[in-house]
Amino acid sequence: MNVGDKQYRTIWMEGSSVFMIDQNALPFKFRIYEAKNYKDTCRAIITMITRGAGAIGAAAGFAMAQAFLEEEIRGERTGTHQFIEIARKEVESTRPTARNLFYSSEKVYEAGLRSTSEALAKAQQLANENVADALKIGEHGNALISERCRILTHCNAGWLGFVDWGSALAPIYVAHRSGKNIFVFTDETRPRGQGARLTAWELQNEGVPHVIVPDNAGAHLMSKGMVDMVIVGADRVAANGDVANKIGTFGKAIVAKEFGVPFYVAAPLSTFDLSITDGSHIPIEERSADEVLYQNGPDGHGQIHRIRIASPGSGAINPAFDVTPAGYITGIITENGIIPPTKEAILLLKKL
Amino acid sequence: MNVGDKQYRTIWMEGSSVFMIDQNALPFKFRIYEAKNYKDTCRAIITMITRGAGAIGAAAGFAMAQAFLEEEIRGERTGTHQFIEIARKEVESTRPTARNLFYSSEKVYEAGLRSTSEALAKAQQLANENVADALKIGEHGNALISERCRILTHCNAGWLGFVDWGSALAPIYVAHRSGKNIFVFTDETRPRGQGARLTAWELQNEGVPHVIVPDNAGAHLMSKGMVDMVIVGADRVAANGDVANKIGTFGKAIVAKEFGVPFYVAAPLSTFDLSITDGSHIPIEERSADEVLYQNGPDGHGQIHRIRIASPGSGAINPAFDVTPAGYITGIITENGIIPPTKEAILLLKKL
Repeated sequence: MNVGDKQYRTIWMEGSSVFMIDQNALPFKFRIYEAKNYKDTCRAIITMITRGAGAIGAAAGFAMAQAFLEEEIRGERTGTHQFIEIARKEVESTRPTARNLFYSSEKVYEAGLRSTSEALAKAQQLANENVADALKIGEHGNALISERCRILTHCNAGWLGFVDWGSALAPIYVAHRSGKNIFVFTDETRPRGQGARLTAWELQNEGVPHVIVPDNAGAHLMSKGMVDMVIVGADRVAANGDVANKIGTFGKAIVAKEFGVPFYVAAPLSTFDLSITDGSHIPIEERSADEVLYQNGPDGHGQIHRIRIASPGSGAINPAFDVTPAGYITGIITENGIIPPTKEAILLLKKL
Repeated sequence: MNVGDKQYRTIWMEGSSVFMIDQNALPFKFRIYEAKNYKDTCRAIITMITRGAGAIGAAAGFAMAQAFLEEEIRGERTGTHQFIEIARKEVESTRPTARNLFYSSEKVYEAGLRSTSEALAKAQQLANENVADALKIGEHGNALISERCRILTHCNAGWLGFVDWGSALAPIYVAHRSGKNIFVFTDETRPRGQGARLTAWELQNEGVPHVIVPDNAGAHLMSKGMVDMVIVGADRVAANGDVANKIGTFGKAIVAKEFGVPFYVAAPLSTFDLSITDGSHIPIEERSADEVLYQNGPDGHGQIHRIRIASPGSGAINPAFDVTPAGYITGIITENGIIPPTKEAILLLKKL
């Protein structure tokens, strides 16, 4: 995707370093973060310098490839791969909810057991596949979007959340580039504000007409007939079609169903986890209360401050994800087509 | 209610001035704002130095009393009451959604046509009634609250939103003071954060166990069986039981219904508007986009900053209220008892 007049991917690997757009600096500053070793990359996932199901997947793959490189450089390659085993555990403990993370670390781990160069090639391949899959999701999803469609989205499942294109936003980009007049409501997505900060920034760069809405306004907008469809991303899809995604997704799905507004989830197959029978088994990450109690951003002079936005004596809870049961989902947009959120359809798709 | 070891009302009138707790300074600073004339009081309502259905009602009554005083001092008392007519229009245009505002301005206007001292007495009486009604709401609502009850509330319908006690929080205070172990989830209530800033501050001062939750977390909490009931306030109740309240109320009501969680509205009779047949006729205030795009609060050194929290190129919408249809409401807690949200019950109650 374009940033100004230059084309970027969200995350890429060159030599032994992983480069990523620093998503904590956005939308106020555009800068590239360089992770020089796998530990750096893990920290970047934890601190959300890179974030979003697809980008985390690519980052995890690159981190594992870095670990194999480091093991080789340190001359620690032995039969037991102790360094690698530790690295894999570290990579997989960065964010517990995103399926793509485990998918990528496993694939690169397996390749790396053969050779470091295979690990590197696999990590690059996974990132490239992420781009290709996202574009296909965009093309399939575009078929659902009619002229003058008003779409609501939650969080950021755009190109910043992937290596490129995105999941939920890919259909929007394809529709917009194809010349359709569309309009996007982007939920601000408290507490981290990925909708207000990242999705809005992406849409602005791509020239898609949009407006930021408080998460609280969804029912009001839908009751007034102002939303034609909802598209969100996914961090993990269970075997039965239940979907873990950013906190607030479930509430919006319930509201959409109440008003008969189609509710679509967009996710590549790498997000599906057939080992999880239903959503109740997906681990939900609880993040720091500080994300709810504090907020950062620039003042009128561009100086960044971290301010308290809640009563000083009180605490907060911060579940980062929720699980939307399949029954609330109209369909899942994948790189291989749009399927109903059922066990049978998911099994069939995974076998193809 | 207590602030530290001193008892306060949210708003009161002494001489020709109206004094109010500055709710824009809370929870970081406790200070009293003095409105010396009716225009000051109007500005305080518009800028939300004072806010909440009951407090706005009292403020509007006091503002009208100030207008009569000012008219008398200026010697402008004539048969046409031009000054008063203008003042009343100004008072009633400060906030369009809250019923109590129109209720109070009308009552004090009528009293003032007889004499200025009657206007002053009526404004004081309305404020005192607001306190008495809120306490009765608390006592009626307390009957619904069982031992170990976990209650979710949205926005601030506490004593800061009234002259004292509150509507939604009054039952919580009465239950807590009666020795019940209860726990409160307070929605942070974007964009202005009245839940995180004001409700949390009140609960902390009153020693009620509580935690701030992102508005987005409601469905997650309810799906896990963590919420036993929801109590919210109201800015206007239509003749058929539809309720206008802070944006996000409607979505939470839909989610509560989905999980069978009782959803109560607490409101004094002065909030009911029988001239409005149903919620679709309640005007919904659209506030400045800046409330969504910017946030203010203190940094680590206590210095207050106003920071941008959204992508600089994007705009926002900011509907301040939504309308929850009667069908989503379990019951309405009033000073005269708890009623079902039906036309018949409301008519009967208003006649008594």
